[in-house]
Order: sequence, then structure tokens, then C-alpha cells
Amino acid sequence: MAVNFEVFESFCAVQGIRIGVTQSAVRYANRDDMVLFELDEGTHTAGVFTLNAFCAAPVTICKTHLQQTDPRYLIINTGNANAGTGPQGYRNAVATCELVAETTGCSPAEVLPFSTGVIGEPLNMDAFRRGVPAAYENLDGANWKRAASGIMTTDTLPKGYSQQLNIDGVSTTITGISKGAGMIMPNMATMLGFIATDAAVDKSILQQWCKQLADASFNRITIDGDTSTNDSCLLIATGKSGLTISDANSPAAVQLFSALKQAFQALAQAIVRDGEGATKFVTVEVSAAQSQKEALDVAYTVSHSPLVKTAMFASDANWGRILAAVGRSGIQNFDLDKVQIYLNDVQIVENGGRCESYTEEAGAAVFAESEFTIAIQLGRGDVTETLWTTDLSHEYVSINADYRS
Amino acid sequence: MAVNFEVFESFCAVQGIRIGVTQSAVRYANRDDMVLFELDEGTHTAGVFTLNAFCAAPVTICKTHLQQTDPRYLIINTGNANAGTGPQGYRNAVATCELVAETTGCSPAEVLPFSTGVIGEPLNMDAFRRGVPAAYENLDGANWKRAASGIMTTDTLPKGYSQQLNIDGVSTTITGISKGAGMIMPNMATMLGFIATDAAVDKSILQQWCKQLADASFNRITIDGDTSTNDSCLLIATGKSGLTISDANSPAAVQLFSALKQAFQALAQAIVRDGEGATKFVTVEVSAAQSQKEALDVAYTVSHSPLVKTAMFASDANWGRILAAVGRSGIQNFDLDKVQIYLNDVQIVENGGRCESYTEEAGAAVFAESEFTIAIQLGRGDVTETLWTTDLSHEYVSINADYRS
Repeated sequence: MAVNFEVFESFCAVQGIRIGVTQSAVRYANRDDMVLFELDEGTHTAGVFTLNAFCAAPVTICKTHLQQTDPRYLIINTGNANAGTGPQGYRNAVATCELVAETTGCSPAEVLPFSTGVIGEPLNMDAFRRGVPAAYENLDGANWKRAASGIMTTDTLPKGYSQQLNIDGVSTTITGISKGAGMIMPNMATMLGFIATDAAVDKSILQQWCKQLADASFNRITIDGDTSTNDSCLLIATGKSGLTISDANSPAAVQLFSALKQAFQALAQAIVRDGEGATKFVTVEVSAAQSQKEALDVAYTVSHSPLVKTAMFASDANWGRILAAVGRSGIQNFDLDKVQIYLNDVQIVENGGRCESYTEEAGAAVFAESEFTIAIQLGRGDVTETLWTTDLSHEYVSINADYRS
Repeated sequence: MAVNFEVFESFCAVQGIRIGVTQSAVRYANRDDMVLFELDEGTHTAGVFTLNAFCAAPVTICKTHLQQTDPRYLIINTGNANAGTGPQGYRNAVATCELVAETTGCSPAEVLPFSTGVIGEPLNMDAFRRGVPAAYENLDGANWKRAASGIMTTDTLPKGYSQQLNIDGVSTTITGISKGAGMIMPNMATMLGFIATDAAVDKSILQQWCKQLADASFNRITIDGDTSTNDSCLLIATGKSGLTISDANSPAAVQLFSALKQAFQALAQAIVRDGEGATKFVTVEVSAAQSQKEALDVAYTVSHSPLVKTAMFASDANWGRILAAVGRSGIQNFDLDKVQIYLNDVQIVENGGRCESYTEEAGAAVFAESEFTIAIQLGRGDVTETLWTTDLSHEYVSINADYRS
């Protein structure tokens, strides 16, 4: 029941990256559940990770290893998050890196481990002993699509994006995959996102971009407000295309950044479109705010309100619930008379009260669409922030009441 | 489907208070929907009100009138919140007070108006012209039970509490009613609560108590995290019993305060037990926090997490979701190794990881109960806060997807 979701089919390989995918039965049998990325020497990688204090063992190790060196291998399993697993979980994540190092001949610090799935279960290490060599056996640059499926949990569809562009006369590729469908209010990055280009990008620029791009994409989506323990997003630059970015302000850098932003936003929005139980894809835009925090506070309060979300599900333009959510979002010295609210181009609130021209029919027509925008003008400043979110449906309750059974 | 809810039957009248209840058809026909309280001269009244910036017109007027004088009449309608109704809504609330003043012979400033129901609809003033005289006609000290029903919206059961106690040899009564089932995360008080005693309490003590009591009851419940535009809670002291409280630290004051706290908490918990779609009544206790804010942040984050709430609904002790919610609640410099989490007396998290002795069976047995406690020890200080909340069920989605239709 994903919302206007087109499965991406035409992946371009990224020079310098090969991917192995296998069925390790780490949790479920007969599905791809383990993915190994091999990155050529010289590849730079930047990452952003969850801010959840209970971050998973693999996240802790990723952060440590990324500070030490550029990774040569990424090992990803689905089905088990290796979070809330204590010292043994940490030892298992270390052992995973050692296993990849033994199999491939790199050092353990050159391996980044990623886990996604249920929290609090011990990791099945036998699955890694089976899966890592098997994934290494079938490394192939053309495996992006299979990898997108191999990292899914409650996702119903694989999420990918790929584009070839010409910058300074050099053909450059951007390809990425992501996953996530619940426990989604990324606070640094989404559950998992891997975006790669074959351009060469200076490491300091790459890290700065990764943060900026995540802030404009994965950090602007929310399904249920629950920040995961395992959110991780990597931006990888192999440097094989011949395009070199060493000045973030050069025209080539601006063009590449813009294309990367398109990739990040497409992958982030794909997560919302395939959100657990989603029947609507809703853009919440807050403008004329005094600060970014204020704009985001209002946008998140509206996006997380169970009453607004159930009204979306019901296609009932119950705008009083939007108003109430804006009112409780914590703005100080709030002059309500300056507030305007629109559903697409239908104005519902004018100067803090019900708009004279508003009709239930006009509001209902917008809410009946599968995609629409709630635009809230605060009349306080010039800051705008945009979030993407979904409704709260029976299907969401069913999925999360049944997830572990 | 209220949770372990016993309808209160044996109301004691409060000397100095008479109540009229009528069917005004303000929104729906054939139900009690308008309640008029008459308070004897000499009665002191204290109130706390919603902090939602979009507070309803009647709330604005209540606050103004309470600053001017003690009220002689309260007029309450259900079915329409008179919120988000702009200048006309304000004029309607003023007109309501004037109507009561004309009917009863008091001044408009001696009237407090309360509205609850749908947001953003114009108030039906014809209903008040019919209802106010009719309610005035049937004023009676014994009408508490009917009043409890007359203020209900999506509540399935009326909420009341009554107790007679002997303080300093004087028989004193405490009686109260409340309502609310959705848009419940009171931020000052619940949707509507009216608690009265026939003791005489100094006005400054009464206001201080009202705030303290609301903080220990209505401000510690949450159903969906949506703070209403109309939350109001009144504490009324008629002074007719012969008991006089003029020192908040006297033994009599301590005894009365303690009894009032019991009344406030019973009425607040009744709202949770009858919460929209509630199948569980859950106490979330956060202890060993550094500050009240920190304890409440953790408690609210756990209580509002859709994933924790759906796990409650499913009777699935998915403790990883509790852990993830604690982790994202915003605590700085959080030493996870000191965190302990219990479901009733079953320890699930020990020193930040899964407790060795924990079994799925033991956790599932607690979650299968209709009432249980999630106790979270942060290991950081000595502050404890307790919230009461419910699960997130299909019924909640159904109620709120259908509410206006």
C-alpha cells in the first residue's frame, strides 16, 4: 500500500564498487538478508549516524572505524539490529568485522558493520560465518538492485536511485539505496542509506556534504516519530570517473551537490511513500518562522499528532486538529492573528481563524488526494522548513501489533 | 472498552452548589449537553487552563473573569469547543455569559463559560437561548451524576468522584467530575474537570493547591500527546461545611489537600481508563532522574511512542521499543550502563542491556495484563515522575478517523 511509489529499475553501476548479496538466514530463511560492499582503494566515505543514546553496537564501531581510516568493506544484515544487546552485542559486531577482514584480506578497521531489524536479540554469528564468504563469492558491480531488496525489513518495496550526469565533460554516476518503514524519525540519517558516486571528492567536503544532504532529506522525514537505534547513512566517493572535487564552491561541486541532493531526497521520500501503513504522502511546510528550531518544532508537532494523522487517513480535513497542534508546539509570544494555513492552495486559516472563503468541500477534496501539502505561515520571520510524512492507519497498528509474531 | 473502569454512583452534594442539566441540542439531539453550576455567594474558585497558544474563546474569558471576581455561575456545553472560531467565537462566548447573567441576575463577569467538542465550528447560540433558562429551571444540589454525563464528548462513561471526610470534627465533602477521551495531554489541566468542596479555603491557598493538584493528576496523564485548546480545571470551595483553611501547613489543610489529591488523581485516571480506544491502563514511572524535566521527557517519550503503544495493544513485551524511546528522549551525557527497566517486578533491562534472567514469557505475562507499570531507573539522580497512559489500538484509529462524520 505504498503511496505513488515507482520501483526504481535502471541502476547504473558505480565504478570502484562491487556488491555481494546472499541468503544467510540470519533471521528468516529464503530471502536475501546479507549484503557486502567492496570499495576500491582510494575511495572516501563519509557517514552520519543516529543520535539515539541507545545506539546499536555496529553504529558505535562504524563511528570509530570511520575516524581511523577509509573503509574497504561494508557488511549489512537485515532481520536483527544488534541493538540493546550489551557487551556480547559489541563483541559480535567486532567479530563480524574480523570475519570480513579474514575473508577479504583487509584489516578489521577497514570494515563497517550495519545491522537492522528487531532490537534486543542476540546476533546469529553462524549466519555470518555462512554469509560473508558467500557474499564475497558473488561480488558484482551490477548488484545494486538486489542489494536494495537485501537490506529491507518491513519495507514492502526496494528503494533505489541512480543517475548519470555530465560535469565538466566527465560522465559521473550517482547511485544509492535506502531502507526503512517504521521507527522513522531519523536524527542524523535514516535507518540505512548508502549513496555512492564515482567522482573524487575531498574527504572534508564529503563529510560536510553528507551532513548537509542528510539534513535536507533523511533528517526531514518522519513516519512515527520514533528515532531508531541504528540509523546510518553513508556517502561514498570512489574517484573513478575522473571528476575531482576539491573546492566545494566550484561550479562542478555545485552541480554534483545538487544532483546528490536529488538522490538523497528521492531515497528519503521513498521511505515515507513506503512507510508502515501509509495511505498518504504529505508535505508539511512551515514558513515565516523566526528560527529553524521553531519551524521544525511546528512541523514535527503537526506531523506527529495522532489526531492530524488519523484525519489524513480518514480524508477528513479536520483543520481544527492542525490548529491545535500548531498551538501546542511551544512557540513563545505567539501572535495568532498572523497565522495562515493552506491545504495545497485552499486557505483554511486566515489571520488565526477560520478563513471566510473556506468550505468543507474544498478541504475534503484536498485531503482525499493521495499527496498534498499542509502549508503553515507563522508570520514571525523568514525561515522555512519542510518535512515529509504519512498518515496513521489501521494498517500501521496491525503491522506494529504483529511485527514480532 | 474502558479499562477496569468503575462508574461512580454515590455522589454527595456539596453545600452551596446547585447544578442544572438540560438538552439544548447544541450539536446532537436527545442528550444532556448543557450544564449550569450555581455557586453560593462567598464561594472561592481557582482554575488552571490549557497552555495551547490557540486556546479557545471561553478559556480566554474564564481567565479574565477569574482575575476580576469569584464566579457565581459556570455554563458548560459539549459538542462544540468554540475554538479556532475567531472574533465571532469570542463574541459568542461573551454573549453566553450575558445570557446567563440576564437569566440569573448576576453580572456577566461572575459567569465562567466552558465549551468542549469539535474545533472550528460556529457556536449555535439558539441552543443557549433555549438551554440556559431550562438549566436554570432545574438547579438541584443532587445533579452531579447527570452533570458528569452532560459534559461527555467521545467519553464512553461518566467520570466522577465523591468523598465525605471528617477534619477537625467537621464533616466536609469533596465531589468532582471530569471528561476527556482524546486530544489528551493536558498542559495545565484536563479537558474539563470540576472539583468542589464545602470547606472554606483562602483564595491564595486555593489557587496554589489547584496548580499543585493538577500537576499531580491531570498534568500527568496522556492519551495521544495532543494538548487540547480547551483544557480547564476548576477547584471550588464553598465554605459551607464550617471547616476553614487559612494556613496551608495546618494539619487540617494537609488532610484536606491529601483528600483532594485523591479526588484529582481518581478523576484524571478515569480519563485514561476511558481513553479513546484504550485496552490498557499503563503507569510509566521514571526514577533516579537528575531533574523533573528529564524524568518527564523520558516518561512522555515512552508514553507517546506509537511503537511502544502498539506493542502494549498487542500484549507484546517488545522492550527494544521502550529502550529506543528512552534513548531518543534527549538526555545529555547519558551513561547507559546505569539504566534499569522493569515491567512490574520483571526486570527487562539490567545496566543498559537485556537482563540475564529475563524471559519472553515473563515479559509477555505482564503485557497481557490490563494494567501494569513500566518502571525506568535512569541512575542519574533522585527525581521521580509518574505518568498514566494507554495503548494505541485499532479502535483509536477508528474513533478518530470517524469522529466528525
